[in-house]
Amino acid sequence: MAAYVGSDAEQLRKELDSLFIRYEGFKLRGLKLNMSRGKPSPEQLDLSNGLFDTVPSGERPLDSTGEDTRNYGLLLGIPEARTLFGQILCAPASEVLVSGNSSLALMHDTLVRSMLFGVRGSKPWCTLETVKFLCPAPGYDRHFALTASLGIENIEIAMTPDGPDMDAVRAYVEGDPAVKGIWCVPKFSNPEGVVYSNDVVCQFAALKPAAEDFRIFWDNAYAVHGLTEPAIALLNLRDACIQAENPDMYYMFASTSKITLASGGISALSTSPDNLAEIEKLLSLQNIGPDKVNQLRHVRFLRDLDGVKAHMRKQAALIAPKFVVVLDTLERELGGLGIAEWTKPAGGYFVSFDGLDGTARRTVRLAKEAGVVLTEAGAPYPYGIDKRDRNIRIAPTYPPIEELVIASELFCVCVKIAAVEKLLE
Amino acid sequence: MAAYVGSDAEQLRKELDSLFIRYEGFKLRGLKLNMSRGKPSPEQLDLSNGLFDTVPSGERPLDSTGEDTRNYGLLLGIPEARTLFGQILCAPASEVLVSGNSSLALMHDTLVRSMLFGVRGSKPWCTLETVKFLCPAPGYDRHFALTASLGIENIEIAMTPDGPDMDAVRAYVEGDPAVKGIWCVPKFSNPEGVVYSNDVVCQFAALKPAAEDFRIFWDNAYAVHGLTEPAIALLNLRDACIQAENPDMYYMFASTSKITLASGGISALSTSPDNLAEIEKLLSLQNIGPDKVNQLRHVRFLRDLDGVKAHMRKQAALIAPKFVVVLDTLERELGGLGIAEWTKPAGGYFVSFDGLDGTARRTVRLAKEAGVVLTEAGAPYPYGIDKRDRNIRIAPTYPPIEELVIASELFCVCVKIAAVEKLLE
Repeated sequence: MAAYVGSDAEQLRKELDSLFIRYEGFKLRGLKLNMSRGKPSPEQLDLSNGLFDTVPSGERPLDSTGEDTRNYGLLLGIPEARTLFGQILCAPASEVLVSGNSSLALMHDTLVRSMLFGVRGSKPWCTLETVKFLCPAPGYDRHFALTASLGIENIEIAMTPDGPDMDAVRAYVEGDPAVKGIWCVPKFSNPEGVVYSNDVVCQFAALKPAAEDFRIFWDNAYAVHGLTEPAIALLNLRDACIQAENPDMYYMFASTSKITLASGGISALSTSPDNLAEIEKLLSLQNIGPDKVNQLRHVRFLRDLDGVKAHMRKQAALIAPKFVVVLDTLERELGGLGIAEWTKPAGGYFVSFDGLDGTARRTVRLAKEAGVVLTEAGAPYPYGIDKRDRNIRIAPTYPPIEELVIASELFCVCVKIAAVEKLLE
Repeated sequence: MAAYVGSDAEQLRKELDSLFIRYEGFKLRGLKLNMSRGKPSPEQLDLSNGLFDTVPSGERPLDSTGEDTRNYGLLLGIPEARTLFGQILCAPASEVLVSGNSSLALMHDTLVRSMLFGVRGSKPWCTLETVKFLCPAPGYDRHFALTASLGIENIEIAMTPDGPDMDAVRAYVEGDPAVKGIWCVPKFSNPEGVVYSNDVVCQFAALKPAAEDFRIFWDNAYAVHGLTEPAIALLNLRDACIQAENPDMYYMFASTSKITLASGGISALSTSPDNLAEIEKLLSLQNIGPDKVNQLRHVRFLRDLDGVKAHMRKQAALIAPKFVVVLDTLERELGGLGIAEWTKPAGGYFVSFDGLDGTARRTVRLAKEAGVVLTEAGAPYPYGIDKRDRNIRIAPTYPPIEELVIASELFCVCVKIAAVEKLLE
């Protein structure tokens, strides 16, 4: 069929009839498929089972300085794990804290410390009338939920193909002392797969915040998660901030959740020496040290940045074909209809899909009723509200290829039904 | 020599001279010994190396319901780990949350939630003028440091051989709505080794708090850490609270830090279903699930409560002789002198020592100058202030026996020097 937009009502009604026939056909199959969350598949996890043998029972697992990883201590992690994450985050090991299995928990804790203790001598945020966070959207729903839960006001910032709209960011950060932070996924952003341009990173580093305790929450969750060669580079925010004489303005986060194991991985935070000293002091009240045995497992298994990259090529070999299935299906089913756009990411875990305005929720509901669970429409926006009701996050990594073929096709049928219904309104 | 107390000044001066000769002899040996923290020894940790082989690389580690422990999810832990900690804490698995390597972190998070969100609808504690916590002392320094860091006022409560002075506890809890909690280590308390009597536990359960959000922080860190047979029982606080119609008044904590590995263990919190539901909701903002692989390792290694008990008998076989060394040395060197008392614990990790008033800091300094690090004097009291300056916590588990022999003897010499100096003032 030709482009929907511009077709007359009769053509559209006929199309809708035939779409519903296809849709009912899917329904009869009793599908139970899930494209909702950025979960690695079992095959991806299998790539890291070698982890389990790296610390065998026959030896005392000592770190490179002879410390027993089984005992208390080393609040900032074992030295070799700090070095490894330093390589991933482009920071010296001395500026890296390595923790447990969740970088989200590190972000949570960093926010909680700011709420209760302030930042480097500033007033605790929980004592302030208003605290605001900038939320480039579409973005990561768990980021926005975290600040919202703490009573922080989430402010939506538009995304461009180069990163957040920096004019808007600058206006807020430099004009409003209540703006204390911004959420960023700077490489293969969730969900659009945007890699922030060098210019955007430099503009971040050059911000002159109205609030002395403004911080960039730089969640580099997909630092080494490219699907193409050669690897795409992200400018180093740390160096840019130092150069711009803003050395304390960022916290960078990473984890191995999507390198090794989603549950049994390790995570890291890197920030300036002065920021890290403050964090260490408060962290000492919370914990007597991370699970260092698992840190040792990881360093023995991944070795160094080259080892990480080699491992990620194996991940890409499993993931890339799934992206191809989704993107090919979208092109085949929706190309030229004028009712949708979508990203073609070079890395990360998602395809970001925009349908016609006012169709996303209907599409997700149709898919669900036919047995395919998608991310809730609106989820990538602050407070779950996509004002245009058009964006849907597609997560292709978890389902097997054969399920993805079916789910993608059904998704397209639902998109088309919702679009035709909208055009007929 | 006869009792110091009652000796004349000349006798004491002669004694002091000969003590300093012994002391200088120790100094010449250039010791570097540490009896300061409750750390397991390498030999104790070796008992759990079998953990490392329980999840081998050749299989997909699924939990008892078929969930892949390597992937995201199961915020409350895998079912079999919840069952295991339920057995340790005497609670149904459905009331247990199993988390990462640190029960201190669970306590921290529980306090932080109360500060920022309140408890079951109460006002966030950070919005209140004054929040008070009761601190039975001597007690665990990290407990007291945690509440103090959050701006909570720590109130010292005297310990008796049966537990905290419950008349004082009741007066505070029932009389002052600012009193929001109490720190308890109910079995083999840190540092005295006290096991709360059945009557004390029942009095706890029967409290009628002035604050609706008052909670007992029941850190059952040494639930299965007896050194003697038959095992000493602690009355079940949960059942007592239910019986007293106070079902929501407690949080119970435990970990395997001193069962398996201090660093690579797992931890748990148990509380009423309504409390747990609130915790789960807030926890979902912080984390996408604990390290479930390590939970599976633990269940496969420890199996069940009988397995835990069998394992703890091996621990006791390593620890008990170290307590004997310390207690024998104290008796031999200090018995009958009238200058000291100390506990003879049936479990746990510490001996609590009381010298003459005004001698603890001097004793610790003397020991340090001769190369033996002890826990800072005053540490077991709120704000680190032991008003009588007499208590010292001795931690015998970490040093090898041969070092403990030397360190204990030197400790006694320091105690005696400090006592004679005090008597000569």
